Amino acid sequence: MSFRYELLQLDPSTAARRGRFHTPHGPVDTPAFMPVGTQGTVKGLEIGMLRATGAQMVLSNTYHLSLRPGEENVRRLGGLHAFMGWEGPILTDSGGFQLFSLAQMTQVRETGATFRSHIDGRLIDLSPERAVAIQEALGSDVAMVLDHVVALPAEKNAVLDACERTIRWARRCQEAATRADQALFGIVQGGLDLEMRVWCAEELRKLNFPGYAVGGLSVGETPEEMYRVLDGVVSHLPEDRPRYLMGVGRPRDLLEAVRRGIDLFDCVMPTRNGRNALAFTAQGTFRLRNKIHETDTRPLEEDCPCPACQRSRGYLRHLFQADEMLGPILLTAHNLTYYQRLLAGAREAIAAGQFDDFYRRQLAGWSASEKEPAKSEEAG
Amino acid sequence: MSFRYELLQLDPSTAARRGRFHTPHGPVDTPAFMPVGTQGTVKGLEIGMLRATGAQMVLSNTYHLSLRPGEENVRRLGGLHAFMGWEGPILTDSGGFQLFSLAQMTQVRETGATFRSHIDGRLIDLSPERAVAIQEALGSDVAMVLDHVVALPAEKNAVLDACERTIRWARRCQEAATRADQALFGIVQGGLDLEMRVWCAEELRKLNFPGYAVGGLSVGETPEEMYRVLDGVVSHLPEDRPRYLMGVGRPRDLLEAVRRGIDLFDCVMPTRNGRNALAFTAQGTFRLRNKIHETDTRPLEEDCPCPACQRSRGYLRHLFQADEMLGPILLTAHNLTYYQRLLAGAREAIAAGQFDDFYRRQLAGWSASEKEPAKSEEAG
Repeated sequence: MSFRYELLQLDPSTAARRGRFHTPHGPVDTPAFMPVGTQGTVKGLEIGMLRATGAQMVLSNTYHLSLRPGEENVRRLGGLHAFMGWEGPILTDSGGFQLFSLAQMTQVRETGATFRSHIDGRLIDLSPERAVAIQEALGSDVAMVLDHVVALPAEKNAVLDACERTIRWARRCQEAATRADQALFGIVQGGLDLEMRVWCAEELRKLNFPGYAVGGLSVGETPEEMYRVLDGVVSHLPEDRPRYLMGVGRPRDLLEAVRRGIDLFDCVMPTRNGRNALAFTAQGTFRLRNKIHETDTRPLEEDCPCPACQRSRGYLRHLFQADEMLGPILLTAHNLTYYQRLLAGAREAIAAGQFDDFYRRQLAGWSASEKEPAKSEEAG
Repeated sequence: MSFRYELLQLDPSTAARRGRFHTPHGPVDTPAFMPVGTQGTVKGLEIGMLRATGAQMVLSNTYHLSLRPGEENVRRLGGLHAFMGWEGPILTDSGGFQLFSLAQMTQVRETGATFRSHIDGRLIDLSPERAVAIQEALGSDVAMVLDHVVALPAEKNAVLDACERTIRWARRCQEAATRADQALFGIVQGGLDLEMRVWCAEELRKLNFPGYAVGGLSVGETPEEMYRVLDGVVSHLPEDRPRYLMGVGRPRDLLEAVRRGIDLFDCVMPTRNGRNALAFTAQGTFRLRNKIHETDTRPLEEDCPCPACQRSRGYLRHLFQADEMLGPILLTAHNLTYYQRLLAGAREAIAAGQFDDFYRRQLAGWSASEKEPAKSEEAG
């Protein structure tokens, strides 16, 4: 079997775990953060720079690539790996989240969803079978089932309806899948209702997916509500499969989820914020447009190997003030490097049986400086 | 002396010459093309990518950097080399061209020019002495005298007035200059009037500059008029000093100027056009937004080592269609690599005594495909 989750270590005092997820395009050391390459590129990063951040696996989007350039064009251009020049593992999101966040006039029926493209208003159908077919044409290593996401807070009936549909659609996706070199992950829905989350997890386990995601979070709830859901649901996911928390989040969220047993993450937070001059560091976040950085000769972080940290804060500020592309480029590289270093640190701490110490040290560092941005955001 | 032009070879059948220009930050093999880093960055290129294009020397702009972030801030941040992270030689333009092209309501008096900043409308003075002081604070290897540029065609009297002022200002710049580690180049003006150009060159030679530029071209005249000026003026510049044709141009223009004895070039053409999806190749130019490239699996150029040529034309087109930053980034890298390879080819051809063959082969290659853009443009 091309896909295998190898559990390497359990932290003694938390549910954190270290492992290795094997894919046809190589292994991923977990817990791991996947940079978001929505349209077949992590915005602003030439592929060598992306590799240099330490990322092992990237995410791309079914919804966007099927609209433009179209999955058949990606296939003709050699599939997603050759298309974007990334030789490592790729996970594609199914489009479920974009139906909820980005598409216009989305109507969900049992057969599938109908929506208008955010690019040209075209009317488009996305069924579970079509979501699988697109992802097979793209040729990602991991495909996601098409799920039904609802904004929180929501009525219990709406959450239950979406959760049940997600399970039915998961089965249809599984039946439609044909590629042996592509793993299909199930997605647990159920809003903030722990009982429903657990039920959904148990139902999906019966389908024996090679990996499981927790979806429908970071969509309006508080961080504490999200952590509570993870507290309730993660132990109901099989220990021998990777566990992926979709679209989350802030550095703090990652560590909270790691300590609850999550293995995989993706989020636009480091990249989108980087483009907007917000830098993540072990001392918290910096807004690089602030005048205090104007003549600061120090790098963002002394020990960071990224190209932004070969320059001064003053230079980085100048790039943003002067609307130079290089500002977003360098800060994207830095923030992704920061996220990768954070998770590499988490993996080392788990290996040493000291994740809780690591977690506390990071929190103490962040609280030293400005506040973090209030809210995690998923891919637009 | 830190600066020295070493003449290595003269082509037997043209005026082309190969040399090496020694600066405090290393040598430049000439003929050479300097990428334009207007605001302390070649737009979109991380410094490692810029180095990988093969560039040895870059240009930056006094006008822009003095307005933002201010030359004193650049100095506090370690000077221009440390500021932008470029360890090689840097040439700074004096601002003369921007007074003519970009500043608003410019008034030229004998003492200097007064203009309104294109950023915030502030009223600003730029005298020859101030242009030198700014460039000394920036710390470039080569500074340019402040010149008076006029649009062509122009009345003979206006051209003569600007030309005479350029000579007087050149002397004032020279008197104001204090840094031993910075070479100050004179600029020959005189429009399309050969007699005036020669006179200006002779007057400037009396001042014994370590290098000479031909300015005020690519400002409205035809390519043939420009070549005619070079035919007339270059032989009046000293053989033991570098000769720099400012703000030019198209690949064809570079070879025409090399065959007339020019050593140094700068132009925004490869970078600005790259950002607008125009690719330069040995087979002429490609507009990457064209639908014919949609599923083209070939690289722009088979033998090009740049990162864009590790991808397909179809992918590059997708990046531009999807408004991804990576499109401009990759095409900037490609076009600069193309320019560097073109000049490396010219240097090799001169070394082999076969520049004319090389020139004819390049022209034949370019005529195979679409037309080149009609007109050269200098830095905005």
